[in-house]
Amino acid sequence: MAEPRFLIIADGAFGPETSKTADCAIRYVPERVAAVLDSTAAGRTAQDILGFGGSIPVVGTMEDGLALAPTALLIGIAPRGGRLPDEWRGWVATAIDHGLDIWSGLHTLIGDDPELAGRARAKGVRIFDLRRPPDILPVSNGRARQADALVVLTVGTDCNTGKMTAQLELLRGLEARGLRTRFVPTGQTGILIAGWGIAVDAVAADFIGGAVEQMVVEAAKDAEVVLVEGQGSLIHPGYSGVTLGLLHGSCPAAMILCHKVSRRLIGEYHKGTAWIEIPPLADVVRLYEEAAGWVHPSRVIGVALNTYDLPERTAAAAVARAARETGLPATDPVRFGSGPLVEAVAQAAARRRAAGSATPE
Amino acid sequence: MAEPRFLIIADGAFGPETSKTADCAIRYVPERVAAVLDSTAAGRTAQDILGFGGSIPVVGTMEDGLALAPTALLIGIAPRGGRLPDEWRGWVATAIDHGLDIWSGLHTLIGDDPELAGRARAKGVRIFDLRRPPDILPVSNGRARQADALVVLTVGTDCNTGKMTAQLELLRGLEARGLRTRFVPTGQTGILIAGWGIAVDAVAADFIGGAVEQMVVEAAKDAEVVLVEGQGSLIHPGYSGVTLGLLHGSCPAAMILCHKVSRRLIGEYHKGTAWIEIPPLADVVRLYEEAAGWVHPSRVIGVALNTYDLPERTAAAAVARAARETGLPATDPVRFGSGPLVEAVAQAAARRRAAGSATPE
Repeated sequence: MAEPRFLIIADGAFGPETSKTADCAIRYVPERVAAVLDSTAAGRTAQDILGFGGSIPVVGTMEDGLALAPTALLIGIAPRGGRLPDEWRGWVATAIDHGLDIWSGLHTLIGDDPELAGRARAKGVRIFDLRRPPDILPVSNGRARQADALVVLTVGTDCNTGKMTAQLELLRGLEARGLRTRFVPTGQTGILIAGWGIAVDAVAADFIGGAVEQMVVEAAKDAEVVLVEGQGSLIHPGYSGVTLGLLHGSCPAAMILCHKVSRRLIGEYHKGTAWIEIPPLADVVRLYEEAAGWVHPSRVIGVALNTYDLPERTAAAAVARAARETGLPATDPVRFGSGPLVEAVAQAAARRRAAGSATPE
Repeated sequence: MAEPRFLIIADGAFGPETSKTADCAIRYVPERVAAVLDSTAAGRTAQDILGFGGSIPVVGTMEDGLALAPTALLIGIAPRGGRLPDEWRGWVATAIDHGLDIWSGLHTLIGDDPELAGRARAKGVRIFDLRRPPDILPVSNGRARQADALVVLTVGTDCNTGKMTAQLELLRGLEARGLRTRFVPTGQTGILIAGWGIAVDAVAADFIGGAVEQMVVEAAKDAEVVLVEGQGSLIHPGYSGVTLGLLHGSCPAAMILCHKVSRRLIGEYHKGTAWIEIPPLADVVRLYEEAAGWVHPSRVIGVALNTYDLPERTAAAAVARAARETGLPATDPVRFGSGPLVEAVAQAAARRRAAGSATPE
């Protein structure tokens, strides 16, 4: 099928930390983005708002968006709980009436909404619910530990720290070095970009591990390195279950720890509910290695920082400090390049090759 | 509504470790059980098979079961993955045709099966899917830590170690001591027995913590002690996500560690897939306390052993060894009574009262 050209809805929320799906689409597949709808930022560009994305325009109304000839509507935010705001249903209906396909990563599956689904059928447009889980999934029993590839999982001090971005940057860097590498998407945005995957936060809880296990085993069939998109954080009370299921289901030999430098409290971007302080990075490294080891041994081999909201010098100092505190290669892969992480993963892959075993070192 | 009288299906699987839902119904609500259907054990009694349950008969055919005038069919096993075996669909259909309600704890929701649901509607019988999640659930943000009650969670070295049973025995013991106590069911069997609850392993993974948080906050409104049914194990690759979500969502001040003494490998009752050795109990205690502490501090205050398959002297020795190795009160609450655990919880509740705080000690 032809590539979609998206009108992305991010009304009232288009910004570097509030519209993750929109932002990542603009960063990684900008050629598919016609415009962003945010009535509070109409007339500006993606570059103005995000610092990247060039001249992609922000429009203030559906009418202005439709005038740019999009072929699909993309819900560009992932609100806490993942439900469709009531006022957005009207926009979805309008988009359907204008013949646009609907792409959504919400927990509320738009294809299950009788009115919207019926309208889509009548109009002959498709609804892609990126979070719709497969009908049948296995329970994990640790099969991924036997996958014949170096499995690398990104883990985080919190949600929304750059776990998917770090893997996409690593993917690019490892492929450039000639390593056969595959990216395993586990969330709606990764699925949108890669065109396959399972949103593990939407599967019935018994199958978190089984969902990622199945994908890792599949991806390892034709890759030397498998990069698994991490989710949540072991220290976030809302998402730690997903994080541990992903960790134990994917049996990574190596982890990359992702951290947003300016964040002090877990989940502080959800106003008013944050109360857990993010521990020192070296403690978080130990915590992930210990939790992984309950099922399969794993080491953190690098740190990916997110510093987009800090001045250049502060960011560089944070990278140096993270490397010193953890004794690991560190970088902001978007700002300073993924070099140190690519090197760390390539070395782990080489050690694994040399050892002829499924586990590095 | 009138209490149901169950014909319980456990064909080929009725036994002390293979038909958990059936067994627990027989232990805790025997007055609701008319018969068990297992063609491999026809003519015997629950007492013969389980060592409890008295004269409840095992029948070999649906016809023999229906002759005992049940008012409902209960699916009495929880197979790995929780799906309805194809050959059982016929029995469900027959039961519906005979006017029986259907109670099921499978992940496959029987009410969503168009043929069976249609047949039930036509016949005017009800389908109770114990694992059906509520439509709307919150994401946990740790609200349960502020609940005004002593929250006690059972945790385990593995699945199927007696986490629900320990809580039901504690409930009885604490109520007998006059403590206002509530049981929070988190799995299909607990829900069957208590008549309310949410099967946290069936909710979309993002909402594991939020589901139990909501129940704990509700239960704490009129109780001094809230006993939360635990699930899975932090060291089981298939279920660790559910376990951690439950731990962080319920914010227990105290935990009871449950262990089946004769088990050596995690999940060994699922033949051929087991490979993780169960660590020493003292290590498992530390592991749970550490994982809880990432969000909210908690202590293991007692050990509940499951020794049903061991001789009396071996069982007593195992209890003594567990107490010595962990430095904690230990018992098999079914075999030797829940006294030591009731005492430990009552003391924790008293310390909490004395401190006027939400955390014991």
